[in-house]
Amino acid sequence: MLASYAQRYRDDLERCVSFWLRHSLDRECGGYYTCLDRDGSVYDTKKYLWLQGREIWMFARLYNSRERRPEYLDAAKLGMEFVQRHACDPQGRVYFSTTRDGRPFHYQRKPYAAVFYVMALLEFAQATGECAYCDQGERLFWQVRDWIADPTLLGRLVTPELPPTSTLANPMVLASMALELLRVEDRLEIRQVLAESMQAILRHYDAERGILVENVALDGSDLSAWPEGRLFNPGHSIECGWFMLHILEQMPDAEQEAIALRVIENSLALGWDERYGGLTYLMDLAGQPTLQLESSMKLWWPLTEALYALVCAYARTRDERWIRWLERVDRYAYEHFCDPVCGEWYGYCDREGRLTHTCKGGNYKGCFHVPRFLLFSIQRIERMNGVCG
Amino acid sequence: MLASYAQRYRDDLERCVSFWLRHSLDRECGGYYTCLDRDGSVYDTKKYLWLQGREIWMFARLYNSRERRPEYLDAAKLGMEFVQRHACDPQGRVYFSTTRDGRPFHYQRKPYAAVFYVMALLEFAQATGECAYCDQGERLFWQVRDWIADPTLLGRLVTPELPPTSTLANPMVLASMALELLRVEDRLEIRQVLAESMQAILRHYDAERGILVENVALDGSDLSAWPEGRLFNPGHSIECGWFMLHILEQMPDAEQEAIALRVIENSLALGWDERYGGLTYLMDLAGQPTLQLESSMKLWWPLTEALYALVCAYARTRDERWIRWLERVDRYAYEHFCDPVCGEWYGYCDREGRLTHTCKGGNYKGCFHVPRFLLFSIQRIERMNGVCG
Repeated sequence: MLASYAQRYRDDLERCVSFWLRHSLDRECGGYYTCLDRDGSVYDTKKYLWLQGREIWMFARLYNSRERRPEYLDAAKLGMEFVQRHACDPQGRVYFSTTRDGRPFHYQRKPYAAVFYVMALLEFAQATGECAYCDQGERLFWQVRDWIADPTLLGRLVTPELPPTSTLANPMVLASMALELLRVEDRLEIRQVLAESMQAILRHYDAERGILVENVALDGSDLSAWPEGRLFNPGHSIECGWFMLHILEQMPDAEQEAIALRVIENSLALGWDERYGGLTYLMDLAGQPTLQLESSMKLWWPLTEALYALVCAYARTRDERWIRWLERVDRYAYEHFCDPVCGEWYGYCDREGRLTHTCKGGNYKGCFHVPRFLLFSIQRIERMNGVCG
Repeated sequence: MLASYAQRYRDDLERCVSFWLRHSLDRECGGYYTCLDRDGSVYDTKKYLWLQGREIWMFARLYNSRERRPEYLDAAKLGMEFVQRHACDPQGRVYFSTTRDGRPFHYQRKPYAAVFYVMALLEFAQATGECAYCDQGERLFWQVRDWIADPTLLGRLVTPELPPTSTLANPMVLASMALELLRVEDRLEIRQVLAESMQAILRHYDAERGILVENVALDGSDLSAWPEGRLFNPGHSIECGWFMLHILEQMPDAEQEAIALRVIENSLALGWDERYGGLTYLMDLAGQPTLQLESSMKLWWPLTEALYALVCAYARTRDERWIRWLERVDRYAYEHFCDPVCGEWYGYCDREGRLTHTCKGGNYKGCFHVPRFLLFSIQRIERMNGVCG
């Protein structure tokens, strides 16, 4: 089953990776351009640190798990040298962006640039066999955990008068880093973080709707008078669903698996735009207006996350209903976002599915969601079908 | 001339102001709800400080310059009492938002919440005759000037490795505060700020295109490798055009007036969407992708600013070509944004002019752009036609 998907995805992965290899490597100043227009031309020379880390991780993962092509390792090295020199401020916090040559441009007071740096370090260590990167990655992992626990360390303002809240991205990134660390060494304290992350994710579970909501109060306070408390990000909820399935491969639990599958299915059902197709970017669960202007747009990454989640769900259950969703999401995604001529996908459409931006990459879109979904899906299908990947 | 516009605008102003009077006043906790759906129902109980200051200013200005209705003064008082109690942190910096009852929610590290507080204080002082508000407003005005000159005072990170830049909003708000201060007292040091602001605005002038660009380097560095350096916000450029005309009433200069009029005309011509109508929100001057997802959307405020700018331009020049633009913008705005049933305008459409949000207010849209444009336009037309307003 799914062999025809695997074949198409292999072709698309080749086109996608070629796009980034051809256009994103800055041989002169190091690191990666990510603001690339349709044909790969650079429209912003700045270096975005979320995306530097993600692209290093991606090339190293391709090298480690798909094919040991020297150009993958070479591309990963180009990024790693850049971030090692320019990513951090004197206190070890990671910038959001630098100029082309590495001068600090913007600092975001969020932990996510560091999260992708951790993932880059761990995967790069495996590609090169150099343990120092792994040690650095693990040190930064614990640091990120502290930053998430106490955001004032990042320079964020705390508001002690408000109920403490959790935002879904935080347990998600903790889980994803812990999963990567487990690939390097299986230690109890890492498993502990993974278990804690699962518990933290489950606090976002809306049992009535069967989805994960973006923000919850940790003391049980009602946040429904605020748009933040009613915010549903279907792509995020679905992505977290497959993260849960990955966690459950490490620590099986039938009840949690049922929740993960329900989250994937119900987030798709609630987030799918029955009128124009595609997954709505942001929704208010009470049907009220959102504060974000781009809410009704269609983005590429909720689709890639849904596609891989559906492959995982089918692989786990062999239930045909996942295939029907897969066909539907795959058709919409390839009709609206794929560019078979130049490679990579477009990123942004309006609600009706018309492109609003011609770019393949930007300050938040890089060499990550599309090739990760393709690689992971291919590997999952090959594993399911007993093919050695 | 324009008498029929004045009549329609008077009706719309009445509907608009009624909407805010009916729905935005929080009699229990003080201050204003601004997150109001089409019919005025509240979808977020938080208080947004930019919009508290703007609504106080608006009601006080209506009271001072239009009609001394007790409900205007009463509404202004409700807002002023709230901000006096809850707007500032212990260092006197103004929050972006608080909870309904005034607990700090978000701090933005930008000076704009304070800008609108200054305007509120100055206008409220005139409404009540209480000089203490005026003194407080002037102190905060000088404070804001310092914050703009040195953003580290707001907790912003400076990047000394980068060329110093100016963002158009800063000289715009300095000019707008100085113009308000001049209404209270005509002092040399205020005129000095006004003259400096005009010079700072002119540094944003792109003489070739005849528009104001959002970001310029103060040392002449070329910013065109970055989207920030190529960013054009037509509504902002046009709004700044009428700010320039207001400044020039205080300090006439024929050459600068020609520039202001050219900015209004060319920003309209470049920003107008010939295919679907309306003013594009954000554009890249080289035709490359923008980093903002909402760039191709149509917002209400570029239209209100264009309409008042056109009234000003016509009043100043009596040239019929401004009337032709006024007809065109007025028709588009009223067809797509006005809600004659419940009052106030909608705020957000997609490129094709379909509403993306049903709300009348939010975290950035309040009782400000629509009633200000209506009041100012009515007053300008009445002044032009020799009617005492």
